Amino acid sequence: MFIIGELINGMYSNIAFALKERDKKIVQTCALEQISNGADALDLSCGPASKNPLIDLPWLVEAVQEVTDKPLCLDSGKPKVIEEGLKAAKNKTIINSTTADIEKLEILIPLAKKYQSKLIGITIDTRGIPQNKDQRLELAAVILTHAGENDFPIQDLYLDPIAMPVNVAQSQMQDILGAIHEFKMISDPSPKTVIGLSNVSQGAKLRSLINRTFLTMAVASGLDSAILDPNDKELLDTLITAELILNKNIYCDSYLEAYRKK
Amino acid sequence: MFIIGELINGMYSNIAFALKERDKKIVQTCALEQISNGADALDLSCGPASKNPLIDLPWLVEAVQEVTDKPLCLDSGKPKVIEEGLKAAKNKTIINSTTADIEKLEILIPLAKKYQSKLIGITIDTRGIPQNKDQRLELAAVILTHAGENDFPIQDLYLDPIAMPVNVAQSQMQDILGAIHEFKMISDPSPKTVIGLSNVSQGAKLRSLINRTFLTMAVASGLDSAILDPNDKELLDTLITAELILNKNIYCDSYLEAYRKK
Repeated sequence: MFIIGELINGMYSNIAFALKERDKKIVQTCALEQISNGADALDLSCGPASKNPLIDLPWLVEAVQEVTDKPLCLDSGKPKVIEEGLKAAKNKTIINSTTADIEKLEILIPLAKKYQSKLIGITIDTRGIPQNKDQRLELAAVILTHAGENDFPIQDLYLDPIAMPVNVAQSQMQDILGAIHEFKMISDPSPKTVIGLSNVSQGAKLRSLINRTFLTMAVASGLDSAILDPNDKELLDTLITAELILNKNIYCDSYLEAYRKK
Repeated sequence: MFIIGELINGMYSNIAFALKERDKKIVQTCALEQISNGADALDLSCGPASKNPLIDLPWLVEAVQEVTDKPLCLDSGKPKVIEEGLKAAKNKTIINSTTADIEKLEILIPLAKKYQSKLIGITIDTRGIPQNKDQRLELAAVILTHAGENDFPIQDLYLDPIAMPVNVAQSQMQDILGAIHEFKMISDPSPKTVIGLSNVSQGAKLRSLINRTFLTMAVASGLDSAILDPNDKELLDTLITAELILNKNIYCDSYLEAYRKK
């Protein structure tokens, strides 16, 4: 599982404060803590309150890559903001994200190619959130077709079925799991899969329990990557155990510690 | 999920003591605690140390049905012991278990019919434990065919793919999950599925974590029933959450309490 740490996001008060005060130390501490807890990459988002994302995102990029060479996941709905992040990045990058809208694909796929970035494609378009598995597969096909036609390497594409909160879209959870499974089969080579895990428990009370239970099912469905909170120890314990059961790591009595040392 | 409590078993010292001293109270307390924590049925086993299982199993049956009318899962490898349990039972019963060996099927299927008992069929035979999913499916077909030919109601048959310990059969865990999924599709009406959950963590250190992570995957694979420790609160919390994600219970903020009250 490729773990993308979610905590450098302007929607959190510490990061909002760091952005406002240009306090690199806060961002860097958050980066290093996530990495020490298992993050393979770091999501960077200015958050909805940022007034200057064109400046804020590159600042986050620069702050973080002073302390790590882990890949950076540039998180914005605005292609121009993402491009400023790409320009600032020396580390490897992942664009988060394009939708299945043609006008976005036509900007973000060339941008990803130009900067040799991986790309997250969310199966959503201007019509709104898909209501079942088949609609997700249709939108995935749009993204894949566009990527293929433009010679974007499919193994660098991460399809996101868009995880919905269990308290508002309970009937869709199985569709989301099924989409993860089927995304892997709709092209050869397979695209990768990713979810924004915390979405599933948005607005719910028992967030960590819901997150880790859903993640276990998603891993069993073939999920390659997740944007999540790596500082949630129970979540990571569960993830490591799920991968153990699926024979991705060798069992030993201290398999949690062994995985973390690795 | 039909939960069969596993704790009335002579391999546990309190039950061994109760059997030796004919102390009903210990057994009854254990029965009521499991039921209050969510057990829908209770497994009853004299354990390997019992010298008089023909007397001990009926004694357990009588002790338990003095305090509950929940179904009793009569657990013995010896058909004669099971028959003595069936004779003593006023509650509904589940025979645990037949193997796929013809000589066992020829005794236990008529016995189940005679006493209107449900029947667990483990996909194992005298050749030993199956090494992959296909061998499990072959043995399931033997059990199903025999049940069908003898007019045993298939919906009263619980197929058990035989859960193996992750520390000795790590490569088989996905086969076991796959077997659960496919058992549901090999006949119409479908048989039910069951596992002895604690087997997956036998000999491991982090038993509860491994049990609840495997159970989440098994529930997502369509598992109908499990023999487990209902007093493991984290296990039950995870199970309730897994069923919530699969839309089997309606979400509310206090869904754990709501499920338990029900």
